[in-house]
Amino acid sequence: MKVAIQGEAGSFSHEAAKRMVQGCTIVPCARSAEVFDRVERGSVSAAVIPIENSLAGSVAEHFDLLLARNVFIRQEYRLRIVHNLIAPPGVRMGDIRRVYSHPVALDQCRDFFRKHPGIEATPFYDTAGGVKHVIESGLRDAAGIAGRQAAAVYKGRTLAAGIEDDKRNFTRFFLIRKGRHIVPDANKTSIAFTVRNVPGALFKALSVFALREISLAKIESRPMRGRPWEYVFYADLLCGDDKVARNALRHLAESASLVKVLGVYLAAR
Amino acid sequence: MKVAIQGEAGSFSHEAAKRMVQGCTIVPCARSAEVFDRVERGSVSAAVIPIENSLAGSVAEHFDLLLARNVFIRQEYRLRIVHNLIAPPGVRMGDIRRVYSHPVALDQCRDFFRKHPGIEATPFYDTAGGVKHVIESGLRDAAGIAGRQAAAVYKGRTLAAGIEDDKRNFTRFFLIRKGRHIVPDANKTSIAFTVRNVPGALFKALSVFALREISLAKIESRPMRGRPWEYVFYADLLCGDDKVARNALRHLAESASLVKVLGVYLAAR
Repeated sequence: MKVAIQGEAGSFSHEAAKRMVQGCTIVPCARSAEVFDRVERGSVSAAVIPIENSLAGSVAEHFDLLLARNVFIRQEYRLRIVHNLIAPPGVRMGDIRRVYSHPVALDQCRDFFRKHPGIEATPFYDTAGGVKHVIESGLRDAAGIAGRQAAAVYKGRTLAAGIEDDKRNFTRFFLIRKGRHIVPDANKTSIAFTVRNVPGALFKALSVFALREISLAKIESRPMRGRPWEYVFYADLLCGDDKVARNALRHLAESASLVKVLGVYLAAR
Repeated sequence: MKVAIQGEAGSFSHEAAKRMVQGCTIVPCARSAEVFDRVERGSVSAAVIPIENSLAGSVAEHFDLLLARNVFIRQEYRLRIVHNLIAPPGVRMGDIRRVYSHPVALDQCRDFFRKHPGIEATPFYDTAGGVKHVIESGLRDAAGIAGRQAAAVYKGRTLAAGIEDDKRNFTRFFLIRKGRHIVPDANKTSIAFTVRNVPGALFKALSVFALREISLAKIESRPMRGRPWEYVFYADLLCGDDKVARNALRHLAESASLVKVLGVYLAAR
């Protein structure tokens, strides 16, 4: 089964995809729009996309694409983000002068750099891309910081594992496919909706869930693409595809100008 | 007046700061936490921070810092993001083979790269940093994409202005200072609050505004730092510091476990 991801092979998306779909073949794409294109066209069976990190927040572009494109969320997965120091084979800790990684990852490993003042943190546009860069360029005084999958893909050596400061660092991933399909024990629903720009409009919209005792796990407003400062709301509801949930969504559609069900799936534990 | 920004001199934060505080002296800081440290310590009078981009979404880290730190939002500003191609002096359009910029900026200038297939888009960790890099390294076949301020700061030549695909690209900035101060015509209030994890809790919280016909301009839930998947809500209310607004916030505090007023200020037009 072919699964598209955004970014380089060896990234955290790669790691999440391997765990969500055993034995899948990864198709790395430079841009997120391309990931969604491939799913819609059918040149891959599915895609795995990060949607939210517990420290860094939402991946805004993926919310926009879930709204705009003809795809459906089929699975949710929560990956613990473990950062490793990965060097070219033969390079030892004492040789390292520079470490390449994405600025967010470098910032999440500040203790490591405090303990190794002779090593310079060098911002790079991607975590796995940093490992690829040091290994393919044959650097003898450099390493990258990335997930374990990057060491496997680029045949690097992990010199230090789990060097992130905060162990409570998780990223939520969605597996998306083209067709709408709901597993029988689905218990979580992601929706997008817009409301009229009048006082109390969101309050009224949320009443359809409160009246039916459906919990909101998350809500977020995002500016609508091309209409600065008009907002679309993204919400996660703790309900599956039962009669009460369907009534609530029908009720919501009476006052909301747009309601899209992005997926109904089993909540990650 | 000294104003701290995150990132290199010449960035969009630099541009916003110059427009918000005429004649200010910019203090660039590598990390956002350092920007807030400086404001709290008083080693700068103020800081200017991006909070939300109409295409790329919220700056999650700045929401977290507004909640955690002893600072107050004093002004809001909306900057149109204009991307320019900036080259070292003497380098002409025909010489350019690579263009360095932040991946988000490169992605916002796709038409430019389609029209110039001989020029390679090269991801860099920062927009202004890319311009600094090509000029300070003396590259003769490269340029950067950044705001106009970067050309001024690094003495680059703007070879093409306004090369962003979507002109409806804005970033909201806040000016933050240490003391709580509210201008008389303030008409917008930013708050953070948490609610109990029970069905309808957010609905109840929002009722305090709906009952008083106070509009929500924006709402967003963010995972709480260190407590994955527990959420804090950030909301912008269209109200100033009057009796009705104070009653609403008092009413909110009855059911919310935490309410923090992040600032009361004049809304940007």
